[in-house]
Amino acid sequence: MTVRRRPGAARERVLAVALELFARNGVSGTSIQMIADELGVTKAAVYFQFNAKEELLQALVAPALEEMRKVTEAAEARRRPADQLSTALTGVVDMIIKNSRLNAVVLADPAVSRLAREDPILRDLAARLDRILAGPDPDVEALVTTVMVSGGLMAATTDPRLAELDQDLLRRHLLNIARRMFGLRAIRAQD
Amino acid sequence: MTVRRRPGAARERVLAVALELFARNGVSGTSIQMIADELGVTKAAVYFQFNAKEELLQALVAPALEEMRKVTEAAEARRRPADQLSTALTGVVDMIIKNSRLNAVVLADPAVSRLAREDPILRDLAARLDRILAGPDPDVEALVTTVMVSGGLMAATTDPRLAELDQDLLRRHLLNIARRMFGLRAIRAQD
Repeated sequence: MTVRRRPGAARERVLAVALELFARNGVSGTSIQMIADELGVTKAAVYFQFNAKEELLQALVAPALEEMRKVTEAAEARRRPADQLSTALTGVVDMIIKNSRLNAVVLADPAVSRLAREDPILRDLAARLDRILAGPDPDVEALVTTVMVSGGLMAATTDPRLAELDQDLLRRHLLNIARRMFGLRAIRAQD
Repeated sequence: MTVRRRPGAARERVLAVALELFARNGVSGTSIQMIADELGVTKAAVYFQFNAKEELLQALVAPALEEMRKVTEAAEARRRPADQLSTALTGVVDMIIKNSRLNAVVLADPAVSRLAREDPILRDLAARLDRILAGPDPDVEALVTTVMVSGGLMAATTDPRLAELDQDLLRRHLLNIARRMFGLRAIRAQD
């Protein structure tokens, strides 16, 4: 029996290798030629899938943005502020664990972080998440807590000291530390 | 009366402009030529002070490293673990607020973060600080808390949402949130 390649498989291989190389060398330190070399194909074959490095980056970011939209909307759909916060934190922790490679890429490249900060969709979602985390009219304490939670979570997914931890265990601790920082009670382990 | 330039002033002007440009463009995105242009001098004048961009970076990092050494030794000199932790947190928060520009540079450039991670002096100090923050034989909770506190503090000093805050107010909140994350009691405001 022959295994048929499903459509889009080539595209996904390019994306996987691009993410790998972006994480290792930064986006500006990675060329289409390097991606082609790593895949063992010609540059033309990569260009057949993506016209430019920016298109690759957009394709990598798109599913994470979609996830962020879902998390934001799920949180906003809840009525009580504490439930909104709780839903948002769970969603953000899940999202950040799932996209740790991508976080590393965005964090590590000043040009990419700048692009991310300027993207209107991301800006809108980040502002809405901020409003849920910090509250609609945040005092300094709420603002600093929000920044420390977000920054701490990003750091946690890219820190080599935590790289070997079981993902579920890491997820539970991140979530409970983040909840504690916002004064929410811890969630019991399901084990 | 004429104002005499103190010795070393030219060197310090180069360092200040380099830090500014590194923060804006990343280290790899900044050339000696750009530093010279910003200063309104020739490239040769910059090379007279520093042989290479790496030397500039080292000169920028040196005072922060020295500060980190002092914080680490002051914390280690205390007897009780809770006092060690408390001294370390205060020192780290002060250090991070004072060096926010430099943090941004190190965080933003993958090549620089890699260099920093591989520097033997920094590695040693970071490991000693880790031992104080997480404890000598940390469980997952202590490890994740340590990473979240460090990452959160770094994020806080480079986040545009906190850029306008009064430094003392920011310092107090960062310190108390970090203390709370480690289960230490808050420090009262002195006002």
